[in-house]
Amino acid sequence: MIIKNLFMSELEGGMATIIQVFHKYSGHKCKLRKAELKELINNEMSHFIMVKNETLDELFADLDQNGDLEIDFKEFITLIAMVTSACHELFIPKYH
Amino acid sequence: MIIKNLFMSELEGGMATIIQVFHKYSGHKCKLRKAELKELINNEMSHFIMVKNETLDELFADLDQNGDLEIDFKEFITLIAMVTSACHELFIPKYH
Repeated sequence: MIIKNLFMSELEGGMATIIQVFHKYSGHKCKLRKAELKELINNEMSHFIMVKNETLDELFADLDQNGDLEIDFKEFITLIAMVTSACHELFIPKYH
Repeated sequence: MIIKNLFMSELEGGMATIIQVFHKYSGHKCKLRKAELKELINNEMSHFIMVKNETLDELFADLDQNGDLEIDFKEFITLIAMVTSACHELFIPKYH
């Protein structure tokens, strides 16, 4: 599923993966409904976050900036930025 | 350099890569100076964006939200989100 250009750097490959995983769940409408967002998070981000129904509603409302009851890519990348920032300390190399 | 947990999904691996590439250039201070930001962009994001000196100053000022003349991880992930969103259309699968 992940079609990465051979010339891409690891960082570009990571960015391309974010886009392609979004489309894996959004399909041709390019937007995620609540159930699709939950499925993506629980399948693809389970080591970083887990979402239960009670918290999903709140998370969804926070992400859905334009209030159309769907999450477009711009709203989705905000979630990725938040979670990556939150996990940032986990990956800080030990400098001696 | 890229230490990814074997159990991570591709998405989590992409997020971990973003963190680790940031640290590759920020070193132990966990912040990027202007020259380090330029080096990172031109080495690791050259297929997506190129930064010349004239535009670097403006980009740096936009990213440097707290005005400390360095880019911390939270400011850096904003750049990643912007560029990934801008490149989003390039990776939309052709739905038939």
